[in-house]
Amino acid sequence: MKRFIDLKIGIIGGGQLGKMIAQEAKKMGLFVTILDPTPNSPASQIADKQIISDFNNEEKIEELVNECDITTFEIEHINTEILKRLGKDGKNIFPTSRVLEIIKDKSRQKEFLNKFNIPTSRWKRVNDNGFIDKDLGFPVVQKACRGGYDGRGVYIIKNKDDIENRLKTESFLEEYIDFEKELAIMVARNRHGEIRCYPLVEMVFDKEENICDMIIAPARVDENIYKEASEIAAKCVRALNGIGVFGVEMFLTKDKKILVNEIAPRVHNSGHYTIEGCVTSQFEQHIRCIAGLPLGSTELIVPTVVMNILGEKNHYGTADYIGVNEALEIPGVSVHIYGKKEIKPYRKMGHVTIVDKQIEKAIEKAYRVKNVLKAISKEA
Amino acid sequence: MKRFIDLKIGIIGGGQLGKMIAQEAKKMGLFVTILDPTPNSPASQIADKQIISDFNNEEKIEELVNECDITTFEIEHINTEILKRLGKDGKNIFPTSRVLEIIKDKSRQKEFLNKFNIPTSRWKRVNDNGFIDKDLGFPVVQKACRGGYDGRGVYIIKNKDDIENRLKTESFLEEYIDFEKELAIMVARNRHGEIRCYPLVEMVFDKEENICDMIIAPARVDENIYKEASEIAAKCVRALNGIGVFGVEMFLTKDKKILVNEIAPRVHNSGHYTIEGCVTSQFEQHIRCIAGLPLGSTELIVPTVVMNILGEKNHYGTADYIGVNEALEIPGVSVHIYGKKEIKPYRKMGHVTIVDKQIEKAIEKAYRVKNVLKAISKEA
Repeated sequence: MKRFIDLKIGIIGGGQLGKMIAQEAKKMGLFVTILDPTPNSPASQIADKQIISDFNNEEKIEELVNECDITTFEIEHINTEILKRLGKDGKNIFPTSRVLEIIKDKSRQKEFLNKFNIPTSRWKRVNDNGFIDKDLGFPVVQKACRGGYDGRGVYIIKNKDDIENRLKTESFLEEYIDFEKELAIMVARNRHGEIRCYPLVEMVFDKEENICDMIIAPARVDENIYKEASEIAAKCVRALNGIGVFGVEMFLTKDKKILVNEIAPRVHNSGHYTIEGCVTSQFEQHIRCIAGLPLGSTELIVPTVVMNILGEKNHYGTADYIGVNEALEIPGVSVHIYGKKEIKPYRKMGHVTIVDKQIEKAIEKAYRVKNVLKAISKEA
Repeated sequence: MKRFIDLKIGIIGGGQLGKMIAQEAKKMGLFVTILDPTPNSPASQIADKQIISDFNNEEKIEELVNECDITTFEIEHINTEILKRLGKDGKNIFPTSRVLEIIKDKSRQKEFLNKFNIPTSRWKRVNDNGFIDKDLGFPVVQKACRGGYDGRGVYIIKNKDDIENRLKTESFLEEYIDFEKELAIMVARNRHGEIRCYPLVEMVFDKEENICDMIIAPARVDENIYKEASEIAAKCVRALNGIGVFGVEMFLTKDKKILVNEIAPRVHNSGHYTIEGCVTSQFEQHIRCIAGLPLGSTELIVPTVVMNILGEKNHYGTADYIGVNEALEIPGVSVHIYGKKEIKPYRKMGHVTIVDKQIEKAIEKAYRVKNVLKAISKEA
């Protein structure tokens, strides 16, 4: 076995998730290489090395995997064929290409979950002529099988007239859930099969853009919901034989049922609170998982809220931030700015964590942060 | 005023303290340049840029200061003349050269403290023939005025016979304090004069080598000691007009008096616990101080113990670590490895933080860590 200090970690994807994995790897003294098409990507600002390449370039991905002892990723949209081949050659790539393939096609993911009797909303494959389903009725949710994130790849068909504006891609229909809350749990499973759940959290969405802007940890739900959600989330990751940290997003319906919405095969926005809130952050935990190290404690030390800093509407160009000073004045605030050079509307530019022994105060502070700290364009 | 996101931070010194400042600066999206003579120094593994230079090179220090909006340091042994000149030119260097000059000569530091009626042990300047002092008696402590750290620059003269082995450098004599505990407080003061103390902690020394190996936060002392120590520590930093984070080391005597031992004009080993234990780490706080940002909360969220990972006795060569796996198995443990390529006996190679709601359990775990996790030489 290689010496701990000589382990080299490869990360496909150089965004904020890769950056925060790199931060924890560097804390532990490890060498980190990033593969990303954008020079000076957020993660490469921390890492030791960047390979400039898109996520489909077989040659460059192979170069990364060969240089590193363990390779992981922060995005789903990767050429899985090359990962599969390299995995067969005995290279350490976690999560495995098999898990990634199941997850990155949302219809295949749903089939998989249902096969293991994991509760999901009802859904149906559709062909292009079949957007009216007696069973699911209206409104109904159309989801792209591949490529959706941050609200993209989801379309709500409210009535017959909406059908013409549907997503023009391979998709399926899903029951519209008038949920009470959206919940999430980060689950960690290491190479020895050891598994641990983080606390259940609430995801609060910006209704207008259907993008998560706030995470509340722990979720304000009954103890039995908490327990059930944890069991379901762990079941998902066990069923996948997943290695790494996974984000399991769930609906809590108005009649108190838990339905798995989708799984992210990676560290996740809904787990950022673990940096300040938990004993072991999701990013350190991910390294522990993929390096075959023992899992760290997932205990929440203090109630924590995360507010995403999203690019302001209509802002394009060079990223700038206003209100950092005002945000830092609020007790319990930590500001994370990802280092993206370009701003776009609703792009995740950073996040702010607020810890407070009283969760309601933390939420109130998070909204104060949202009012003062804005990611804008310098040119605007 | 420059845009927050465009602030460039310069750090003189590329060791672990510079690394941890850089980690927090990168978290906030800032550009960091390190000045250090060793290529690929720990801090430069995180930072955006390193200027290779020793700490006396005026030209290179000027280059760093001119490139950056704010310059700080992680070591005291810098050419203060150049800092003084650049400071006069209006460059932002914090703490100021004046503070550094007062502190880096320990006799001048003591005079300064006594002038402000801050309690210290009794001490006397000596000339080379005056190592017997009726007033201070034996044992007595000889301290080098400059250059001492990690137990170096301190010599205990137990009796007349020890005098011939004294330090052969400019020094002073200090009363030998048979203390009950060594304590420390990190104090943060920003450019607006806002000041905050971190919790009082205990410093536990490896008796053999006179080097601090464990920090216990909070200190297990009476409330009134806690309060008095905080007031004294804040008084020190106010007296200095210090800007930045300062470590104030103190003795608690057996008759419950607090004496200031010495001040570090920088982030400090005794403040590493703040990363996992406090709302705002000393490293983020230092950036807030020098950048004129509001101070963060210094509240301790959970009892925290830090065990230093020191190079093993007789180990020289390429750094290696054993027992990382075993250490990570202990709940509440975070491992920090600094990324130093070379090991030397008692060199600070990393540290382990242990959080636990019960401080005594955290201490017990820290000793378990000390028994399993060792920094050794690959060649050994």
